This record gives sequence, structure tokens and C-alpha cells, in this order.
Amino acid sequence: MPEREYLYKGRILNLALQGPYEIVEHADAVAVLAQQEGRVLFVRQYRPAVGCQTLEIPAGLIDPGETPLAAAQRELAEEAQLAGDLELLACFYLSPGFCDEKLYVFRATNLKSTYAQPDADEELSVEWHDPQEVLEAAREGRVEISASAMAGILFALQGR
Amino acid sequence: MPEREYLYKGRILNLALQGPYEIVEHADAVAVLAQQEGRVLFVRQYRPAVGCQTLEIPAGLIDPGETPLAAAQRELAEEAQLAGDLELLACFYLSPGFCDEKLYVFRATNLKSTYAQPDADEELSVEWHDPQEVLEAAREGRVEISASAMAGILFALQGR
Repeated sequence: MPEREYLYKGRILNLALQGPYEIVEHADAVAVLAQQEGRVLFVRQYRPAVGCQTLEIPAGLIDPGETPLAAAQRELAEEAQLAGDLELLACFYLSPGFCDEKLYVFRATNLKSTYAQPDADEELSVEWHDPQEVLEAAREGRVEISASAMAGILFALQGR
Repeated sequence: MPEREYLYKGRILNLALQGPYEIVEHADAVAVLAQQEGRVLFVRQYRPAVGCQTLEIPAGLIDPGETPLAAAQRELAEEAQLAGDLELLACFYLSPGFCDEKLYVFRATNLKSTYAQPDADEELSVEWHDPQEVLEAAREGRVEISASAMAGILFALQGR
């Protein structure tokens, strides 16, 4: 494989060429599935990259030196003011054809309230929904969801 | 929202700044879940962006002017030499925090052999696996999977 030739080094991503391949280097991410009485915890926020609101589950980038588990606890606290016991459900590359971002999905159980300062640049609303209803709404184009939400919904419906 | 200032316009992606946000514009993609006797069809290939082999399901980018359905039929034929009846299972943004790539996941039924010229720049092997085994192998780090494989596995396990 040829060396990577960097075209841009930025805040959350780098862009490089490696032979004929356009490659984006991006921090890894975490997402957290939290359920209560058959509903799943979602966060709704405006995403400039896609130009609309999305329904996701609590998620965010892993800070340098942070473990996936610590990042998941932090995001759950910052975005939903919740703490819990976390268990890794799955990890996968989001779009390995061009990007190295890996997502770690955790399940949170024994949920309890906590307090954490929300990210200053994040405006989001916390919503609990029936996962089957969100899946159908996404299929019919009535809501836009993320890969993190998709994995959370399917794990919730799988019931394990 | 401020205008996008383009830093790079390339073959499969553009990089832009929109205010403080680093944004990648990327073509949308399709993936196909095909099952036979409890096993799921996977493709294994080397991915330069992640520097390793991944286990994915047949997937690829939608060509300009192509519908998601036509792209899914084309990828299933090119990568696995199979045709079938396709039904949309889900669509979601892969990483909407920075990228507008959307993935459409289809289920293929009534599979039959076909012939299509494989992509010249793709070297991949076609493999059928038990989805539960792949999920466990991915969780334990014995195999690297993609979001497309993750969705395919979970839909296969959900049995609908």
C-alpha cells in the first residue's frame, strides 16, 4: 500500500489520499442503548452535515486517551443526565470504504439520574419512544435516524 | 447556517467547512441482506481506510441517477452473482455528526444465480455465516464488521 498523502488535518477529521483512495481519518465513537418500560431513549438534534434533525441514541466521539466505556458513561450523563451499568453490545466500522470511524454500542441498565454539564455547542431534546414505531417511521421517511439509533432499535427489538 | 466553504472536491467525497463544522459530503450507499438456511451472505475484503479485512454484506455506492433499489440489485449481482426480490428494510445516516452518507438496507428473497462483471478494483470473497456467530466474533474483536453487516445481522436475528 502506498503512503497516505494528507490534504487536510483538522479538528475532528483528517483527509488523505492513499493511492487511488480518498480516506477520512476520524475519531472513534460510542453510543448507548437505554430502555425503560419498553421504550428506548433517543436524542433529537439538528445536524448541519445532513441539514435536518435526526433521531439518534446518546452518542459522541471518544476523547483522546479516553476508553470507549468512559466515553459512553460521559455521553449518557451529558446528553440524558443518566448513569447506569454499561455492557458492550457491538462495535463496527461505520463506513469502512472511506473512513476509519468505529462505533462502540453499549447497553445501559440500572439507570439512575445524575448531573453533568451538557456540551455548550449541543442543543438536543431527550425523548423516549417505542423502537418498532421509530423503525417504521424511518422506513417511511417520517423521521431521519442514525446508525447508532438503528443498532439500538434492533438490539432493543431483539431483547438481548 | 453559514455557507459551506469547500476545501476539497474529489471522486467519492467533498470536504467543506460550515461555520465551525467539518463536513464530508459523500454519495449514499446500499447494502443487501441475503439469507439461506439460517446463514447470511457476507463479503470479506481488504479496506485501505481501516487497514484490515472487514466482513460486510454486499454493499456499495449509488451511482449518479441510480435508484437505491437498482444499486442494490447491481451490487448483489456484481459482488455475489445473485439476483432476487428486494424489499427495503431500513435507511439511516451512518455518521450524521460530520457526513451526509445515507445507507439503504434491503432484504433479498427468492435468490437465484446471475452473472455480472465484478468491479475491476474489488477483490472480495463471498462467505455464508451464522449471524449470531459473527456478532459474537465482532464483539470479541476476532473479526471487524461494518455498519451494513451489523444491520444485516440484527435484521436476520430478528427474523423479520
